[in-house]
This record gives sequence, structure tokens and C-alpha cells, in this order.
Amino acid sequence: MPQLKTRPKALIFDVFGTLCDWRNGVAAEVKKAFEGKEVDIDPHEFASLWRGEYQPAMERIRSGSRGYVPLEILHRENLDRVLKTRGLEHWLTEAERDSLNHAWEKLPAWPEVPETLSQLRKHTLIAPCSNGSIALMVRLARFAKLPWDTVLGAGIARNYKPEPEVYLASCDALGFNPEEVMMVACHNDDLVAARDAGLLSGFFPRPDEYGSGQTSDLDAAADWDFIGSDASSLLKIFAT
Amino acid sequence: MPQLKTRPKALIFDVFGTLCDWRNGVAAEVKKAFEGKEVDIDPHEFASLWRGEYQPAMERIRSGSRGYVPLEILHRENLDRVLKTRGLEHWLTEAERDSLNHAWEKLPAWPEVPETLSQLRKHTLIAPCSNGSIALMVRLARFAKLPWDTVLGAGIARNYKPEPEVYLASCDALGFNPEEVMMVACHNDDLVAARDAGLLSGFFPRPDEYGSGQTSDLDAAADWDFIGSDASSLLKIFAT
Repeated sequence: MPQLKTRPKALIFDVFGTLCDWRNGVAAEVKKAFEGKEVDIDPHEFASLWRGEYQPAMERIRSGSRGYVPLEILHRENLDRVLKTRGLEHWLTEAERDSLNHAWEKLPAWPEVPETLSQLRKHTLIAPCSNGSIALMVRLARFAKLPWDTVLGAGIARNYKPEPEVYLASCDALGFNPEEVMMVACHNDDLVAARDAGLLSGFFPRPDEYGSGQTSDLDAAADWDFIGSDASSLLKIFAT
Repeated sequence: MPQLKTRPKALIFDVFGTLCDWRNGVAAEVKKAFEGKEVDIDPHEFASLWRGEYQPAMERIRSGSRGYVPLEILHRENLDRVLKTRGLEHWLTEAERDSLNHAWEKLPAWPEVPETLSQLRKHTLIAPCSNGSIALMVRLARFAKLPWDTVLGAGIARNYKPEPEVYLASCDALGFNPEEVMMVACHNDDLVAARDAGLLSGFFPRPDEYGSGQTSDLDAAADWDFIGSDASSLLKIFAT
């Protein structure tokens, strides 16, 4: 890992996966939603299927074939799609689906995250640069105890990562040039896009994001500006 | 004052004047900037002149004759204008002007504000809906200890109050309808615009915002949904 020439003036973070455990968080809410119903579902498989609809739904917006709508709308549509695909559409009412859609606001942070962010905040500005909307990120921040300076990302750019404007609008909103800001993610493709946009890149893996048997993003796929073992590694950047 | 039918789901705040004492904050920085220079200036008068350029500068953007630029750019241009008008342009270098421009990030909160916001945050989402940019609001939040959920306002709407889209974009970003959100300000005209956009309105006066002899906004000019004596009055909305 090369030495950073200067400390970043802000760290902006991917959230789903990098800071929060969406798979277990969503599975817990899926389990609750189907509790007492005589239907056999695997909550973790359901969570993965729901997440699987994420990229295609955003792609329609990134490609311009659909105007920007916030992620909670896409999540809600994707939930309908998963229920239909699995022949489960008769088991949840519209109100139950609306309620389950809030699962994405109730994701546990990975254990070291809240304290790490509190520590990082003493040294630098911190904000999410997620595809989650401002509404979603604000609620998730309260649930998962993420002490943001403000919410950046898709909600202010009105487009989705990895479109460069999402990273660039986030830097611009803080009054910084891209090279003064580090994008932090456990997904190599997010960092490819951030680096292409001129940002610094920080990586650590989340080998359990997709459960056991995960094969992707187990290691840094490039010479990112910072590579750590988990979020707490980022504190080294600011150690004297 | 009419009884509120329902509690607001979010409170969004004017900042300059309503929560922070811009006049004394800016005057303190002006005093520092001219310290050791053999020129006689009144820092409070200078602060008022600088603030006086605020509305005309924003009006060019609201009218569409200029694209959106963040408030710190307008502040910097306005500083040049005030220095020139007062024949002071030879007393501050470009670097000293850039430095003084950060005065707007160093405004003390009125005394009851930080604790009040911390208490309000237990009951509702809170965010600034200011003409200050995200960059400016993030730094001011740290200086003045304002525990926001996120920064809304001009920075996300890319336009200036009292244009309705600034209020509407702020509600939309939180996922709420306008009637679920209360705009809080010590300026009656801000609340006229917020009410016209469909938001709830909360007022308390800041009779010292412009120093002694202030004649405007000493009282509520309409039957706002909430009228208090200072920010801490807002806690009554959430008292059981």
C-alpha cells in the first residue's frame, strides 16, 4: 500500500455492506413479516434475492430511461418483484409490504463501525456516499448509530453510483476537490469509479457480506490509496 | 396560538439569526482581520453592511439571471463589494479576504440552542433549511454544536429561499409531505414562503439579531402554527 501524500479532508462511505450488515438486517425483518404465516421461506435467501434486484433497478435510472426516484421506491418495487417471482404475492398485504420496506433502515452496523466513526469525526468530515436516499440514510444513521456530518451520495446527486457525478457532487457539496476526499468501500467496483472520478480510495473487505461462501471482493483488486482489515484500520490515517 | 393538530415529523430551521448570532460572530472575525492595521472600522457596522449585500446577491440567482453558486461564493464577492464601497480595499489581501470569509462558519449559537436541538432530536428529525450551502452548514454545525440529522436547504435545492422549491425539496428529501414538516424561523417572511409551500410554521423572535434598535420581526406577523419566546419553546410541542 502506497503512503498517502496528504490526509484526506473528508471520508465518504459506501454504507450497504461496507458499514452495515444488510443481509442479516433485512433477513431479520423478513422473518418478522412472515411470522405466523404458514409458508416456508428462507429469510436470508429472500434478503439476497431482494438485493439482487438492486443493480438492474438502478441501471434504468443511470441509463436515463427513467428519471431519478429514491432507493426506497426501487426497494418497494423490487419487493413486489421478488414476492411474485417466488409465488409469495398472496402472503403479504400492501401495508405489510410497505412496513417490510423499512427493513433497509434497520440494518445493524458491523461491530466496530459506530465507535470508529465517532473517532474519525474528530479528525475529518464524514458522510455517507451511498445509493440510499437522504430519507433512508437519516433513518439508518439513527438506527445504526452513524454520527454523520451530513448525508451525501445519490440523494444530492439525483443519480446512482457508479455514475461519476455522484462522487463529484458529494465532494463539491463539502467544498473539496475530489483528490482531497477519500471514498471508502468494501466493493472494488465502487472504488474503480471513485478513482476514475479523481477521489482517493480506501478499501477493507467484508467477507461475510453475502454470508458464508462469498467469492467476490475478498481482497483489494487494485493498489487503492488505503487498504485495511476493517473500518477501524482507517484510524491509522490520522494517527500522529 | 392555535393548537397543532399533529406533531411535526421533522423540524427544519433557518440558521442565520434564528439559531446563530451572525452579527456578533462576523464582527468578531472582522475585528481580528483588521487587528494591527492602522484603520478605523466598526466591526458590527461592517458585519451589517456585509449581511446587507446578501439579498441582492441571492436575487440574481432566484431570478434566473445567474446559475446557482453556493453562499460562500456570494459572501466572498460581497466582501469585496463592502471593502470597495468603504474605501477599504487596500487593507486586506486576497488571502486575508479568503480567511475572513470563513467568519460565516464561526457564528456562536444563541445560548439555549445546542441543548434544545439535542432534546428535540429525541422526538423528531431536525435539519437546517438555510441559504447556507452544505459545506458552510457542516462547518458551522461543528463550530456552534448543532446536532443535525442532515443538512437540507439551498445546498440540496440549488436555489435560495424564499423560492418554494427550497422548502419542498427539503421535505421531499426526508420523505415527508410539506404538511408534516415545520419550518422554524425568527423571520416572518421566511414563514410566509414556507406556509405558502404547504409547511407548518414555527416562530420565535430574536430581538437582538440586528443589535439594539432592531425594528423588524420583533413579533409574529401572522397566526403561525407555533409561536414561542425562543428555541426552547419548541420543546412544548413534544411534551406529553
